[in-house]
Amino acid sequence: MSHDLLSQIDLPADLRRFRESELLQIAQELRGFIIDAVAAKEGHLGASLGVVELTIALHYVFDTPNDLLVWDVGHQAYGHKILTGRRDVFDTNRELNGISGFPKRAESEYDTFGVGHSSTAISAALGMAMASQLKGEKHKHIAIVGDASIASGMAFEALNHAGVSGADLLVILNDNAIGIDPAVGALKDYLTKTKSGKETGRDNIFESLNFDYSGPIDGHDLPKLIAEFQRQSGLSGPRLLHVRTVKGKGLKQAEQDQVRYHAPGKFDKITGDIPAKDESQLPPKFQDVFGHTLVELSQQNEKIVGITPAMPTGSSMKIMMDAFPKRAFDVGIAEQHAVTLAAGMATQGVVPFCNIYSTFLQRAYDQVIHDVALQKLPVIFCLDRAGLVGQDGATHHGAFDLAYLNCIPDLIIAAPMDVVELRHMMYTSQLGLPLPIAIRYPRGRGHIVQWQLPFEKIELGTSRLLSQGNRIAVLSIGSIGLMVQELIQQEQLDITHIDMRFLKPVDETQVLRVLENHDHVITIEDGTILGGLGSMVGNLAFAKANKPLPQLHVLGIPDSFIEHGPTADLHQLAGIDRGALLQLIQSL
Amino acid sequence: MSHDLLSQIDLPADLRRFRESELLQIAQELRGFIIDAVAAKEGHLGASLGVVELTIALHYVFDTPNDLLVWDVGHQAYGHKILTGRRDVFDTNRELNGISGFPKRAESEYDTFGVGHSSTAISAALGMAMASQLKGEKHKHIAIVGDASIASGMAFEALNHAGVSGADLLVILNDNAIGIDPAVGALKDYLTKTKSGKETGRDNIFESLNFDYSGPIDGHDLPKLIAEFQRQSGLSGPRLLHVRTVKGKGLKQAEQDQVRYHAPGKFDKITGDIPAKDESQLPPKFQDVFGHTLVELSQQNEKIVGITPAMPTGSSMKIMMDAFPKRAFDVGIAEQHAVTLAAGMATQGVVPFCNIYSTFLQRAYDQVIHDVALQKLPVIFCLDRAGLVGQDGATHHGAFDLAYLNCIPDLIIAAPMDVVELRHMMYTSQLGLPLPIAIRYPRGRGHIVQWQLPFEKIELGTSRLLSQGNRIAVLSIGSIGLMVQELIQQEQLDITHIDMRFLKPVDETQVLRVLENHDHVITIEDGTILGGLGSMVGNLAFAKANKPLPQLHVLGIPDSFIEHGPTADLHQLAGIDRGALLQLIQSL
Repeated sequence: MSHDLLSQIDLPADLRRFRESELLQIAQELRGFIIDAVAAKEGHLGASLGVVELTIALHYVFDTPNDLLVWDVGHQAYGHKILTGRRDVFDTNRELNGISGFPKRAESEYDTFGVGHSSTAISAALGMAMASQLKGEKHKHIAIVGDASIASGMAFEALNHAGVSGADLLVILNDNAIGIDPAVGALKDYLTKTKSGKETGRDNIFESLNFDYSGPIDGHDLPKLIAEFQRQSGLSGPRLLHVRTVKGKGLKQAEQDQVRYHAPGKFDKITGDIPAKDESQLPPKFQDVFGHTLVELSQQNEKIVGITPAMPTGSSMKIMMDAFPKRAFDVGIAEQHAVTLAAGMATQGVVPFCNIYSTFLQRAYDQVIHDVALQKLPVIFCLDRAGLVGQDGATHHGAFDLAYLNCIPDLIIAAPMDVVELRHMMYTSQLGLPLPIAIRYPRGRGHIVQWQLPFEKIELGTSRLLSQGNRIAVLSIGSIGLMVQELIQQEQLDITHIDMRFLKPVDETQVLRVLENHDHVITIEDGTILGGLGSMVGNLAFAKANKPLPQLHVLGIPDSFIEHGPTADLHQLAGIDRGALLQLIQSL
Repeated sequence: MSHDLLSQIDLPADLRRFRESELLQIAQELRGFIIDAVAAKEGHLGASLGVVELTIALHYVFDTPNDLLVWDVGHQAYGHKILTGRRDVFDTNRELNGISGFPKRAESEYDTFGVGHSSTAISAALGMAMASQLKGEKHKHIAIVGDASIASGMAFEALNHAGVSGADLLVILNDNAIGIDPAVGALKDYLTKTKSGKETGRDNIFESLNFDYSGPIDGHDLPKLIAEFQRQSGLSGPRLLHVRTVKGKGLKQAEQDQVRYHAPGKFDKITGDIPAKDESQLPPKFQDVFGHTLVELSQQNEKIVGITPAMPTGSSMKIMMDAFPKRAFDVGIAEQHAVTLAAGMATQGVVPFCNIYSTFLQRAYDQVIHDVALQKLPVIFCLDRAGLVGQDGATHHGAFDLAYLNCIPDLIIAAPMDVVELRHMMYTSQLGLPLPIAIRYPRGRGHIVQWQLPFEKIELGTSRLLSQGNRIAVLSIGSIGLMVQELIQQEQLDITHIDMRFLKPVDETQVLRVLENHDHVITIEDGTILGGLGSMVGNLAFAKANKPLPQLHVLGIPDSFIEHGPTADLHQLAGIDRGALLQLIQSL
């Protein structure tokens, strides 16, 4: 489609030069631009389509970047990016060295706050508003938050504070009744029923928190949005505008199948259809092996339940929810609650599989320590998206889990090398462990097509000797071991390779044997170089190995944030790819 | 006072044999017992005095332990402990090997869930209620939560889920308008205004979340509580009972000065008076040096603000709040919000000192990574209560911070050895750092009486050589270095001692020099043995030191949870005390 008006907009100042009557066409063009871009290059679709009018109205009425917009999560910010100087580079979205899929401070002054994880926008915008108060400056501070996101605890904390702050803060509740999966929880039901205050004559929940509440209004009605923003720009104090939008708006399939079109991959930009792919011969994704295995185990063990904080599709917990709807729970974007809920269940002998993306478990770190490990409650954490995750980038890499979990006592930490090992670890966990366990595995597909092998119990703290050499040994943990194994086979290297399987309890006997029988020991992990397997082996070497010690080489994600791009490229950047390992081995 | 009836109550079953008319006397006796015990042995007073009637009524009406009570935080559970089998050992409260100051599963079947950190009870009780549903068992599940605690995000997440769970969950909101310090926030204001639903004819905030709301009722009116609990025991589904209590009830001073009598130390059990102490000649507490220094710096630098999540007294942020009421903020029990609020402020050039207890920063781990470090926002974290904290025990030790922070890129991690170093680090931080910094320091007093020395800028990543020996070197970080210094002086040891000051950036040059010039290098830290200074030095040794490597000995908190008791005893248990270090040195 043509982009006659859109092509004239490099910055919001250009947008503001158009007449209000022309904005409808700009909305059409912007929507078309997003569809074209995502159809060709992949990315997040539905959220941005849903806020096209909202985005235009915001930049039209408010004086950005002098007025400060904070987008929560950021999936919905493509339109914002396109209108704020990044139209011509938008085809690099999520590519290595391209623009980020999320708002990012380093990228643009219009991106006032970097996002990715949910529910941070109100806190951040309130911080900005309080800063303006302190500095005696006049700005508007606007947080745009989805209905799934505002139900998360952190957002409530921010509302509770903002309500008594007197700060000039406008929260726009972008209510489309869906996050990545359909929204859940009591607040969602409440919002669905909400009518305007005038109709009900009552305080609503936001007014209870001392917000000036307006709405709900139609978030696709540009004149209404503009009129309302103009009214809002004359107000001050904490206020919430409730806007109803449709995720995927303007692309029929995306409106009808909102979950699939959240991030549909490549699709036909004209018809909207996603090309059929025959994936039956591909090895399955780790997440699907998790989902199917959980169902299989649940058929045998009636104590098993599943818990996901708002990631039924992404984690494949959906498979369990479909098979056992009364035994699998989506608790919403509520990682803290998910973990302690699991702990509460475990006190009563229930066996909870709590599936959380590695990066999102950071949100429940205290609960893992204080509610689970300290009480030795045998919660089974399945941590998806561990290690570098690719295009979602720095906010989403599961880089830290090995390190932040390793310092917690009374927690078993496991990482399967392949999907069959994942199955065995899940099977072993539900047999009755004395302690909680965290099983971390990566995003994406394994390499094993025939994965539904009979369950085997794995002895805790045992490693697997995969090949035996003499001078050089590689200790790997998790799926990166596949690369090591392949490298050894393909290059016919005479080196020892051990799949550690457990970071804790670590297979001390095996590690000490390796340290004593090799000149060089290499550890490799898809996790931070500090605090994980390398540190663990180092500690052990000094504490218990006979001297002289071999040379220890620690390969892991270096002590810096890794940006977005294809996972293979990121592994190379981090120095944990095949090439880096081979080079190191050859140098020895 | 006499405990005629109380002495007949070993378990709640005994309580239930009394007539309702006798409960008033039991309440008096229980209150007296708590006052006597805390007056003599210290501990938490006000919270337990406030729930004497509530505690009795709960155990009288409900069939504990078959019905499941979950006390939030647990400061208020002394009465519960005394009525559930621990009356005769209550004088060991918080002592080494004595009972815990908090409910603890290992201690009693009546303690259904271990607590310490706030806002976990609703999640845990909901988990239990859902477990009962799954198992087809009939129990009542009751969470008792304070008004400060229910305003924390995690509690909201639990309410939001519970409201649609259909689970048999009774939340008792113990509303006394105070946590440790007076409650803050919009919800608090709302609760203060709340009248019974019948009076207003409106949904209130809990009804909006699909809870059946009752109250508010007088939490000191035993007959009313009993009647209401009897009514509640016939109901099912999620419901909230709003109970108003007075913290410190029954001891005049404790009612009048609720902050001081939260944990008053020893006091006169008859008069309630706290004996006057002349502390002017004692070295100041680290927290007070923080508070006064922050005021001093704020006088010079108008960009500085202070943020505390509900710990103004405990962190001494109160000193700043009194001096600059518009520049210091208590945001309530909201660590997540506190951190991202600080990040939002920092984007606008404000310099936030965000003071959080080390153990509570676990609640905001994701925010430190995702909102602060990833964006390189120069937030200044002051982490009080780092290391082992003594009588509060396993839930409250600041044991993990060095490890869980060390794996985060772009974060400076510092630990002052003494209060003067703390001042210099605070001074240095507000001069304009390119990155955020975490400054961790312990609970309690330093050793320096004359602490108000002129500010000095500390070069980032520099250590201090405190003594030079030859064969043996000790690298310490934080206040444990004082012990090392004293030991060396008192025993006239010929060893090198370096106060590392920074875990990150670590003083690599100094560490390598030490590794190359000594036969034995000892690291010592008041933090977990995994992931902190010891691991860092080990990594460095393997990666960069010339060979042969010296022996490395890592002293830190072992990989197990440490219980409660005097800090000196706990240091001994952990093997990081003077004796352990001396013994190690002598063995070398």
